[in-house]
Amino acid sequence: MRLLTEAAIEDIALGAAVLGTGGGGDPYIGKVMAIEAVRKYGPVELYTLDEMNEDDLIVPAAGMGAPVVLIEKLPAGDDMIRAFEALGKYMGKTPKATMSIEAGGLNSIMPMYVAARLRLPMIDADGMGRAFPEIQMTLFTAHGITATPFAMSDERGNTILMETVNNKWTETFARTLVVHMGAMSMIALYSATAKEIKKAGIPGTISLAEKIGKSIRQARQEEANPVAALCKSVGAFLLFKGKLSDVNRRVEGGWNLGEAKLEGFDEYAGATHTLHFQNENLAFSKSGEFLVTAPDLITVLDVDTAEPITTEHLRYGMRVAVIGLPCHPAWREPKALELVHPRVFGYDIDYVPVEERYG
Amino acid sequence: MRLLTEAAIEDIALGAAVLGTGGGGDPYIGKVMAIEAVRKYGPVELYTLDEMNEDDLIVPAAGMGAPVVLIEKLPAGDDMIRAFEALGKYMGKTPKATMSIEAGGLNSIMPMYVAARLRLPMIDADGMGRAFPEIQMTLFTAHGITATPFAMSDERGNTILMETVNNKWTETFARTLVVHMGAMSMIALYSATAKEIKKAGIPGTISLAEKIGKSIRQARQEEANPVAALCKSVGAFLLFKGKLSDVNRRVEGGWNLGEAKLEGFDEYAGATHTLHFQNENLAFSKSGEFLVTAPDLITVLDVDTAEPITTEHLRYGMRVAVIGLPCHPAWREPKALELVHPRVFGYDIDYVPVEERYG
Repeated sequence: MRLLTEAAIEDIALGAAVLGTGGGGDPYIGKVMAIEAVRKYGPVELYTLDEMNEDDLIVPAAGMGAPVVLIEKLPAGDDMIRAFEALGKYMGKTPKATMSIEAGGLNSIMPMYVAARLRLPMIDADGMGRAFPEIQMTLFTAHGITATPFAMSDERGNTILMETVNNKWTETFARTLVVHMGAMSMIALYSATAKEIKKAGIPGTISLAEKIGKSIRQARQEEANPVAALCKSVGAFLLFKGKLSDVNRRVEGGWNLGEAKLEGFDEYAGATHTLHFQNENLAFSKSGEFLVTAPDLITVLDVDTAEPITTEHLRYGMRVAVIGLPCHPAWREPKALELVHPRVFGYDIDYVPVEERYG
Repeated sequence: MRLLTEAAIEDIALGAAVLGTGGGGDPYIGKVMAIEAVRKYGPVELYTLDEMNEDDLIVPAAGMGAPVVLIEKLPAGDDMIRAFEALGKYMGKTPKATMSIEAGGLNSIMPMYVAARLRLPMIDADGMGRAFPEIQMTLFTAHGITATPFAMSDERGNTILMETVNNKWTETFARTLVVHMGAMSMIALYSATAKEIKKAGIPGTISLAEKIGKSIRQARQEEANPVAALCKSVGAFLLFKGKLSDVNRRVEGGWNLGEAKLEGFDEYAGATHTLHFQNENLAFSKSGEFLVTAPDLITVLDVDTAEPITTEHLRYGMRVAVIGLPCHPAWREPKALELVHPRVFGYDIDYVPVEERYG
């Protein structure tokens, strides 16, 4: 167990936004909420899975919806606690810890808010090692852990609980509800024992996010190249440098959907590439040819500061670097890959690991 | 307490479809389900509210969705029991009885299925004395009884529970879910004590339905005029006789929505009237002038047999009688009327009681 300092939370929020591949919410909003919670309720205790008892109940916590909405509607906090507590009450069991479902500026941090406010351990792990746009797209699903019982709550005080026959139905019902909840709600789901999560989850995601955040911060302080430092620290590939020349973004079905065009500069001058996103960046293409796709990570960074830019913040004129990072190997197993294959997102192509093209 | 015989169930299903004002589901389907349940599990015991203890928990049961779907998708039965039992489990209390939320061919009968299968009393009462298309449109709402905790289940085995800040939010969330459940689901809601339901509900609705059904059946046997017999038995007004010349019906947002045009015959020859419906018949007009509207009851009957015709069965060429029946006086109190005023349904007119125009 270690205590998360405010500095650590800053690094984690920054690094998690890199792993969030454009989704998972604005790191600034997540950071502010977590630091405020820590100041008010006390520090977050970060536990490894090995430090928990095998049958301890762990209840992940997250925000669900279109991250663009967060810019104008901050999570209230009470809604997160309400969903979390509703799930424990419904199960008739006391959660022993919370954790992240996915990495992302907000969704790596929401569990810290729960952990600080309810004085619960937070686990250094998640269910994706990145962010994905739909509930069933987790390694938990691939390992047979059910998303239900599922709880969701909005800022008005409405709470929904569900038991579904599979995790895709949880997504279907929750997605239609979140639209009526103003495109943002707080959820608790995928509750499981520490033993189950050891098998299905990705350990160390919070520490990895912290390492990424730290590498960016230190490079900035040393006036080194933060994008290069980041790539080196985690083995990511620089895919492109370009200026955003067109952003087509819409909120649809509770998601941020769209495409962004990039005109290359420096060694990429003359080339045009396209980024495709549904909350997260899912594919990167050139003239209709897909270069990198999910489940590998595609992240857009400010070219000078390496600040990750989430899909809701993409704007004309931004000068960015696009990096690609191999996904966790667990995603490349058949049962996992079928949940997040490029074809699932409507791209009729085979998946080619990023390191095969850029390594 | 009295036992409901198969003959009584036949009369109730017929009469309830008259009170259902075109909605509440097909009486034939309801009847078949209830009789099958009674044969399999034993008779239904019908109790008056006075026969219950004041603090007995009563949990109403109903189907929700577009009744037209029932023509091709019969309720499975298990889905109804699953919703009912999920609610009791969630509340941590044992329901002592069930009842109808609304009168209607299916929704007067679904509680009989629950009562027969779970060996529970059914209460001779409902929450409307008719049917209405939205969850919050009950006299329970007018009396401050909450629709939540609310349970809904589909035939796949998915179950949703909700707690909302008001009954309109229950409607909003449940309606969007029912669309994804194939436009039909089974629900349990408005749980309350016998004491509360005595104040808010309408007593004797099941007996009233039975009386209506019986009057039609006897008139048919005696080769009398069943429409006239029905009007006499409950004080309804004959509004029109006509042939359906156009039916514009669509399934939208989990409802049957539409209008039907009627060309008069007999003493109404030469006149054209229009029926407006949203699951239920909500208004009856002539050349844009509204003659009768909710909350009064508008029911379409086969002109010869007085068989009530639900909105999903309206078809070109049918020869029908349209009758109007004053709603229960409780609907004319301000807090109740504002829930079901013609303006709520988009008709910008004052409510004029049917007996003022036709009495």
